[in-house]
Amino acid sequence: MAFTLLVTGGARSGKSSYAEARTLALGQPAHYIATSEIWDDEMAERIAAHQARRGPEWVTRAEPLDLVTALRETDDAPRLIDCLTLWLTNLMLGDHDWEAAAKRLLAVLPELTAPVVFVTNEVGLGIVPDNRLARAFRDNAGHLNQWVAAAADEVVFTVAGLPMKVK
Amino acid sequence: MAFTLLVTGGARSGKSSYAEARTLALGQPAHYIATSEIWDDEMAERIAAHQARRGPEWVTRAEPLDLVTALRETDDAPRLIDCLTLWLTNLMLGDHDWEAAAKRLLAVLPELTAPVVFVTNEVGLGIVPDNRLARAFRDNAGHLNQWVAAAADEVVFTVAGLPMKVK
Amino acid sequence: MAFTLLVTGGARSGKSSYAEARTLALGQPAHYIATSEIWDDEMAERIAAHQARRGPEWVTRAEPLDLVTALRETDDAPRLIDCLTLWLTNLMLGDHDWEAAAKRLLAVLPELTAPVVFVTNEVGLGIVPDNRLARAFRDNAGHLNQWVAAAADEVVFTVAGLPMKVK
Repeated sequence: MAFTLLVTGGARSGKSSYAEARTLALGQPAHYIATSEIWDDEMAERIAAHQARRGPEWVTRAEPLDLVTALRETDDAPRLIDCLTLWLTNLMLGDHDWEAAAKRLLAVLPELTAPVVFVTNEVGLGIVPDNRLARAFRDNAGHLNQWVAAAADEVVFTVAGLPMKVK
Repeated sequence: MAFTLLVTGGARSGKSSYAEARTLALGQPAHYIATSEIWDDEMAERIAAHQARRGPEWVTRAEPLDLVTALRETDDAPRLIDCLTLWLTNLMLGDHDWEAAAKRLLAVLPELTAPVVFVTNEVGLGIVPDNRLARAFRDNAGHLNQWVAAAADEVVFTVAGLPMKVK
Repeated sequence: MAFTLLVTGGARSGKSSYAEARTLALGQPAHYIATSEIWDDEMAERIAAHQARRGPEWVTRAEPLDLVTALRETDDAPRLIDCLTLWLTNLMLGDHDWEAAAKRLLAVLPELTAPVVFVTNEVGLGIVPDNRLARAFRDNAGHLNQWVAAAADEVVFTVAGLPMKVK
């Protein structure tokens, strides 16, 4: 199994910047796997724009659902997956079986040779949300983070842009 | 005063699993003190089911309000109290004086000889809640956690299922 | 640049008490710079009351918006600024350019000789808020915290009243 790093933290806590720096330190160019769904029709155009902004050290790819294929097809260089909570959102809103998808993701990790850096969000440290979907999302995100953290070689929690080592 | 551990963290952050493992490492069988109110009429039946699921290393007991008596009556083996924030909820919703109850809880700790492991929740790291009860709960939980943490020998903050040592 | 400490954490996590103790350990009397807007008409009276309560080791001052002037005028002793998130709220609600104000704050730090202790809040670790202003506030607070943390000599994250060293 290749080196796996999980970077977790709150909104605007500097997770992505930290994860980007760690990924590039593992090898360049690296793959940037965006889980955003926003790419839709104009996907190619947006990827080009995104890539131009991000610089030549990144090869950008959008993958809202099938991270297993994305990981298999990018196993030639370090990958940053940004982010797991958006991936979970896509799975839940599309009525996919997120738990089965998470298990497939975990199962592919031992097959990989190039490093993988995951970004995720901590969403369970506020008051219990009023609405049912938010509560389900919070529970599922917590489980997903635990599973990936258990499989990861290193886990970092970012606070105010700074890394705290968890594992 | 017996060894006291406080395990805090967000929802689905692995607090309970970590606390269970730590409690059993202190001695078996251990007492599982659930602060859940759900037990109501079918309490005995549910405790039996819960205990069967949890295994012979636990003696399960439900105590939504009177933790002082529960602690005194289980002072023969390690105890896990899961969790303080649910206990606070029960006190607040039942119009009890939570602050007086918290003081009685802290006052009994020095009399105990068997270890005590508390689970609690961090609920103050989101946006200020809209509704007044949620704000009051958030404030009270923060104070309660501070008081128990000050009295505890060890405090652990769980992130993605992993422990971070706070004290 | 004088010694700068950032104390961050959730609501009722003991941020202010910890920050007060750290400030007084740097020199007494110290300046207490409250960013509260509540002072309004009765400001002088309230400051006097606040100061009486806080004790002779503090010189209290209210400054809801202009922290640059407050820092320049209190550069004879350690200062506690409590807190940055309330300052950000004041800037946003008053339709000020918070980002320009933050840059001016960061720019003045290297000119100062007396220590500065900032208190701020972590607000990004819950579910994404429903309302737009809360989301903007959460984003802005996250950026502000990152910028001040990057400039600070020391950053502490408080959990249940206890400090965790971040930087």
